[in-house]
Amino acid sequence: MHTDLVAALDIGGTKIAGALVDDRGHILVRAQRATPAQEDGETVMRAVEEVLGELTVSPLWESASALGIGSAGPVDASAGTVSPVNVPGWRDYPLVRRVRAATGGLPVELIGDGVAITAAEHWQGAARGHDNALCMVVSTGVGGGLVLGGRLHPGPTGNAGHIGHISVDMDGDPCACGSRGCVERIASGPNIARRAYENGWRPGPDGDTSAAAVAAAARAGDPIAVASFERAAQALAAGIAATATLVEIDIAVIGGGVGKAGEVLLTPLRKALTDYATLSFVQRLAVVPAQMGTDAGLVGAAAAALAKGADKAPV
Amino acid sequence: MHTDLVAALDIGGTKIAGALVDDRGHILVRAQRATPAQEDGETVMRAVEEVLGELTVSPLWESASALGIGSAGPVDASAGTVSPVNVPGWRDYPLVRRVRAATGGLPVELIGDGVAITAAEHWQGAARGHDNALCMVVSTGVGGGLVLGGRLHPGPTGNAGHIGHISVDMDGDPCACGSRGCVERIASGPNIARRAYENGWRPGPDGDTSAAAVAAAARAGDPIAVASFERAAQALAAGIAATATLVEIDIAVIGGGVGKAGEVLLTPLRKALTDYATLSFVQRLAVVPAQMGTDAGLVGAAAAALAKGADKAPV
Repeated sequence: MHTDLVAALDIGGTKIAGALVDDRGHILVRAQRATPAQEDGETVMRAVEEVLGELTVSPLWESASALGIGSAGPVDASAGTVSPVNVPGWRDYPLVRRVRAATGGLPVELIGDGVAITAAEHWQGAARGHDNALCMVVSTGVGGGLVLGGRLHPGPTGNAGHIGHISVDMDGDPCACGSRGCVERIASGPNIARRAYENGWRPGPDGDTSAAAVAAAARAGDPIAVASFERAAQALAAGIAATATLVEIDIAVIGGGVGKAGEVLLTPLRKALTDYATLSFVQRLAVVPAQMGTDAGLVGAAAAALAKGADKAPV
Repeated sequence: MHTDLVAALDIGGTKIAGALVDDRGHILVRAQRATPAQEDGETVMRAVEEVLGELTVSPLWESASALGIGSAGPVDASAGTVSPVNVPGWRDYPLVRRVRAATGGLPVELIGDGVAITAAEHWQGAARGHDNALCMVVSTGVGGGLVLGGRLHPGPTGNAGHIGHISVDMDGDPCACGSRGCVERIASGPNIARRAYENGWRPGPDGDTSAAAVAAAARAGDPIAVASFERAAQALAAGIAATATLVEIDIAVIGGGVGKAGEVLLTPLRKALTDYATLSFVQRLAVVPAQMGTDAGLVGAAAAALAKGADKAPV
């Protein structure tokens, strides 16, 4: 019998994944549904309940001591509600109460998806052994989370580490969030692609105008594609340096689709970091690629549940 | 007899202050020397030892259980060394070891001066009762510190909260730290004054070109003076919003000489904050003036020592 087994939910705009995870981070049972993101809130909740239903019929379920949720944000851990941007049917939706009801009253820990990824990288991935870390997802958006003093720092509402929406160019272009010059507005995949296109880069015969196509062009030496990644790297470097200067971190872990561009992004990012991370206590900051795969959200949610349920925190 | 009495040192480029402080934050004994900032390191240390000497002859000294140091930065709490910018004779100077030797082996806690001010505001001042706070000093420079989860967050080296040197204008003017567009480069007193002067503001008959004179002109309606404070407020707002977005704070406390400008700064700052603090979890952020006076550094250093010495943290 597993005494330290937890349930985990990873809720995004595309899929809802669930798992039973042991205290070493192994996924023992899993379930998944597509997110009916454009449906009403109850329909979305039914998909969550179907995932939970598959988990609860497992003979391992009775060993689960807690349940962790990593959800697309914003979340409000203090209220137990979520308002994922890409799930309009959920606004201040009482997800914690509904999940607790569907699971017979298990303790539930809610964190944002960037925080969940961070918990996973700290427990099992590239941030392992680092007491002060920033983990980022650079993809369609830019998200993140923090480990401070050896422990996950979700903040009171579970949203801490939102590096995509700090302004590094306070007179810059308007961002969808309402601010200006946010890291995401400059460094997300769509913005890398848009900037390359606006500056004259054109796709190949396949018509692919994604950031991945721009990355391929940059790797082949296209100067406009290279410049677009350099600009993204500059914004990421300013944001990472700001984080290090504010809270002292010694490693920044970069994941997500744009993160997978590899040295096309990381080489100019490390170079730009020397321009912005100038104070003595931030100069030793390492930038490394993420190690966790698509299960990062589940593993991180499990880590948060283990930390809450057992108070012998893996994160 | 005071069982929870601590010693405190506040070390700056102008003065070295020391005190014995009780567990309610009252200063019972104090001593002070001018900082021989341009002398060699040993001469500076002798001034510290003279301050300590005045404290150790007090009959209360035997009750002191620990000693806290708030020092101009950068500091390195992990190494026990300090390298204050304005005290060139001290570079990686082993201040903790020397103070411990001069005090018969008291436990010593070293933090940066911005962190010390924050400890004081959280214990006795404007951040009291707030579990997540940013406290700032806006003066010749811009410094700060953080309270996270109800506790002071000095970071591993004691420098966390260095908001003056995060870049909010990544293509902006070069800063003395080596980066660009730092909050301090835009919002410090000398930069407020410089910008007003460059844009055509001129001092009155007294020839005073300080930020305080620009503040007086702004209060009298001078549009160039007003604009210079608005630009400073914009940079401060972007920095405060970045901090809230990264770690979740619910209050920002503004002290220091420029902070004393009052509504000339705070009104545009609160307005600009609505432009940059846009995500749901940062929208309730309050901005208030500091409450602690010139003893803030001593009281904060004492708070850090009490937290370390007794493990029943006031901060």
